[in-house]
Amino acid sequence: MLQPLNTELRQRLRALVGEAGWIGDAARLSPYLAEQRARFVSTADVVICPENTEQVAQVLALCHAARVAVIPQGGNTGLVGGSVAQAGQVIVNLRRMNRIRAIDARARVITADAGCLLAQVQHAAAEVGCLFPLSLAAEGSCQIGGNLATNAGGTNAVHYGVARDLALGLEVVLADGQIWQGLSQLKKDNTGYDLRNLMIGSEGTLGIITAATLKLFAAPADIQTAWLTVPDPARALAVLQRLQTASDQRVTACELMSAQSIDFVTQYLPSARLPVSARAPWHVLIEVAGGSHSGALKPVFEAALTAALEAGEITDAALAHSDAQRAQMWRLRKSIPAAQKPAGGSIKHDICVPLAQIPAFIARASAAVTQLLPGARVCAFGHVGDGNLHFNISQPQGADRAAFLAQWEACNEVVHDITRALGGSIAAEHGIGRLKRDALPRYKSAAALAAMRAIKRALDPHGILNPGAVVPEDLE
Amino acid sequence: MLQPLNTELRQRLRALVGEAGWIGDAARLSPYLAEQRARFVSTADVVICPENTEQVAQVLALCHAARVAVIPQGGNTGLVGGSVAQAGQVIVNLRRMNRIRAIDARARVITADAGCLLAQVQHAAAEVGCLFPLSLAAEGSCQIGGNLATNAGGTNAVHYGVARDLALGLEVVLADGQIWQGLSQLKKDNTGYDLRNLMIGSEGTLGIITAATLKLFAAPADIQTAWLTVPDPARALAVLQRLQTASDQRVTACELMSAQSIDFVTQYLPSARLPVSARAPWHVLIEVAGGSHSGALKPVFEAALTAALEAGEITDAALAHSDAQRAQMWRLRKSIPAAQKPAGGSIKHDICVPLAQIPAFIARASAAVTQLLPGARVCAFGHVGDGNLHFNISQPQGADRAAFLAQWEACNEVVHDITRALGGSIAAEHGIGRLKRDALPRYKSAAALAAMRAIKRALDPHGILNPGAVVPEDLE
Repeated sequence: MLQPLNTELRQRLRALVGEAGWIGDAARLSPYLAEQRARFVSTADVVICPENTEQVAQVLALCHAARVAVIPQGGNTGLVGGSVAQAGQVIVNLRRMNRIRAIDARARVITADAGCLLAQVQHAAAEVGCLFPLSLAAEGSCQIGGNLATNAGGTNAVHYGVARDLALGLEVVLADGQIWQGLSQLKKDNTGYDLRNLMIGSEGTLGIITAATLKLFAAPADIQTAWLTVPDPARALAVLQRLQTASDQRVTACELMSAQSIDFVTQYLPSARLPVSARAPWHVLIEVAGGSHSGALKPVFEAALTAALEAGEITDAALAHSDAQRAQMWRLRKSIPAAQKPAGGSIKHDICVPLAQIPAFIARASAAVTQLLPGARVCAFGHVGDGNLHFNISQPQGADRAAFLAQWEACNEVVHDITRALGGSIAAEHGIGRLKRDALPRYKSAAALAAMRAIKRALDPHGILNPGAVVPEDLE
Repeated sequence: MLQPLNTELRQRLRALVGEAGWIGDAARLSPYLAEQRARFVSTADVVICPENTEQVAQVLALCHAARVAVIPQGGNTGLVGGSVAQAGQVIVNLRRMNRIRAIDARARVITADAGCLLAQVQHAAAEVGCLFPLSLAAEGSCQIGGNLATNAGGTNAVHYGVARDLALGLEVVLADGQIWQGLSQLKKDNTGYDLRNLMIGSEGTLGIITAATLKLFAAPADIQTAWLTVPDPARALAVLQRLQTASDQRVTACELMSAQSIDFVTQYLPSARLPVSARAPWHVLIEVAGGSHSGALKPVFEAALTAALEAGEITDAALAHSDAQRAQMWRLRKSIPAAQKPAGGSIKHDICVPLAQIPAFIARASAAVTQLLPGARVCAFGHVGDGNLHFNISQPQGADRAAFLAQWEACNEVVHDITRALGGSIAAEHGIGRLKRDALPRYKSAAALAAMRAIKRALDPHGILNPGAVVPEDLE
């Protein structure tokens, strides 16, 4: 049975981390308590910021002994209530652990504290002529430890994989305060169970990741970027396939955007100019990268797009002829979440289906949602190269926000049932957190849930790590 | 406490799988009992071959209830005593479950029963114009389920990754007979703990893999292969790096072979002709693959090798000008294990170190081994592109085989201590099994071992799955 943080433990923890590591006043606490979508707010009254792994270990050892819940937190940029703390629980935020411990351009490995910002890891890699390819909207404020704990995806996963694929090794503090030193740099290691991948994606419920060794890549000598319009999602897949073949599998990003999502952006950024002139039902931002020199991929890229135009797969194409043009295209794409906000309430979905099922998913889910919520506006966008869409539903114009959002779960169920029918996942890259925990039993096999519960009990017998997240309660 | 198989359960199991699935006479049993290196021999008197997942589930449910040990077995090609059964234990071999369930060339996914031979999966992929890149010496007789259970590596891991990297989803029977249906085809799925990777590499101690969805790749339009001689291992890494850069990261195999290993091959295959004439201390077999058409990579491959010759990285190079020449080069490489046998006893190591540490490892381990075992012959070869070497030690010429092999553990300890000092792994791709289980506590952190034991107890509370493998006993 978990206990609330008492005065004695509070004093011991404060003495342990010192004033620099202790946040207890309301004004300084607020950035750690509210999630950006404002669906979840913590009621905890303390955030602990350890300065090193040993302090994390001592915090967990003390809380484990006292049965006090610990909510691990990175940049607090999550979208599923993954680091929400109730009164009497302790938030442990790793932002003070933000050193790049080592970087080796030749071996293509970086070792970073978990509290390093993702952008910091990207920059460290770029400074030595390498690429750390994980990239997502929150990269300026999310922490690499949080990216690993949630197995983040983002815009480059189509080529480089998700956070899991980029990790070579981890350092993790287990629930009882033991430190698992697993900062391996090895490509092959079969010495027992895969604890690394078990920790990755466990959202802080099995341990606190304190550092990681990560793969770096050769910075691509050439990047070609284009903004396309396509008649429908099936054509988007066709042009993706065409560019994969033409570029010898070098498509590093493929984003699909519905007309609705682009309309929101042009309203939100009135000064923004779309790269294409024609109004189109679907837009695609696509990139290939690699090659031996700048411009190396340009001939095949342009030839493939010309062929796609002739084949009717695309209706228009604008190529980025400069870094500035490329940045502007990405700015449009990355503005979609913010641009959706002025349109009122939005019911979110973060789904993945097998690539070939994307057109069927969009057709079926759009029809079902507009039947359930007449006038609702489907703002679908995302990483279509992975089969991953943010299928967001904006309220009808002028509708009551609260009344619309009251349909959240009903809408989720309709969309998620279609996702399941197509062999998909209801949590592609944002995780489960507290938002989708209770939906999980509907979509995950009983055997998998039983195994998850058994593993949780085994590695965190007192249940102190992020209680309430990810693992549904066993109602039997 | 485990119980031996009793008459009643024996009858129930036999009735369950029928005569086609029951092997109980000595002559038919023998291929399932002896491991190929002859270090381990099972004393079990029954092998059960279920014909489908449901039968596997029923076998495990019965054995779980009766506390009878089950030893999962694939093609019995393992090298670490991973599927060795004692009297009173039951071997479950999946060879009858050998259907390709589905294949989709466009989606690049294959779903295969666990008992499919690796070569069968490769052929099914090739028939639809795709590549399943996992490739290893035993591919004609090992089963894909065993490859996944042991997280096999092989010769193409440098580009395509190990078995883990090739798996999208699994179907697994858990210890109590529950079937976890996880045959996902998704690239992104963050719905809870990563059971897939926990099962992969657990060597049948956490569940029995009964089927898998696996990634396929575009069959490369061009393959360029060369046999090189190099002055030392550092130069092998330099030429690897050069070819990676020149080919835009398309090196799909990079095998290093010591002069001793080549000497064994030319003695073993007197008719074999080496592709190079000069005697050299080290040989490299290297391949790049990809491109848009046959011959596409040839200019960059040849130019890079010419530059490597001028830079002194290589002393000679022979290019394969036909499929037959390529096959002949691979035949030489793949003959090494067999060619080592006539040379007498051999003490094996399957290590991985960070790539840059390969020269230091070879220098230090060779010196230490020849000091410990004067006259011993270092037969080092393997997947140097991954930092993975089979550092095998053949007995001195004319020495007593048994006396030499009595030094197995002492020799292991010397080599493994050097491996650890260089940040390496003592089990790169063959696994732990029973061979290295008791060495694990010397090389793995206490926290990792504690977590492994807790997970084992959680998912297999009666300890029926492959007892004695992988997880060291807790001696506290």
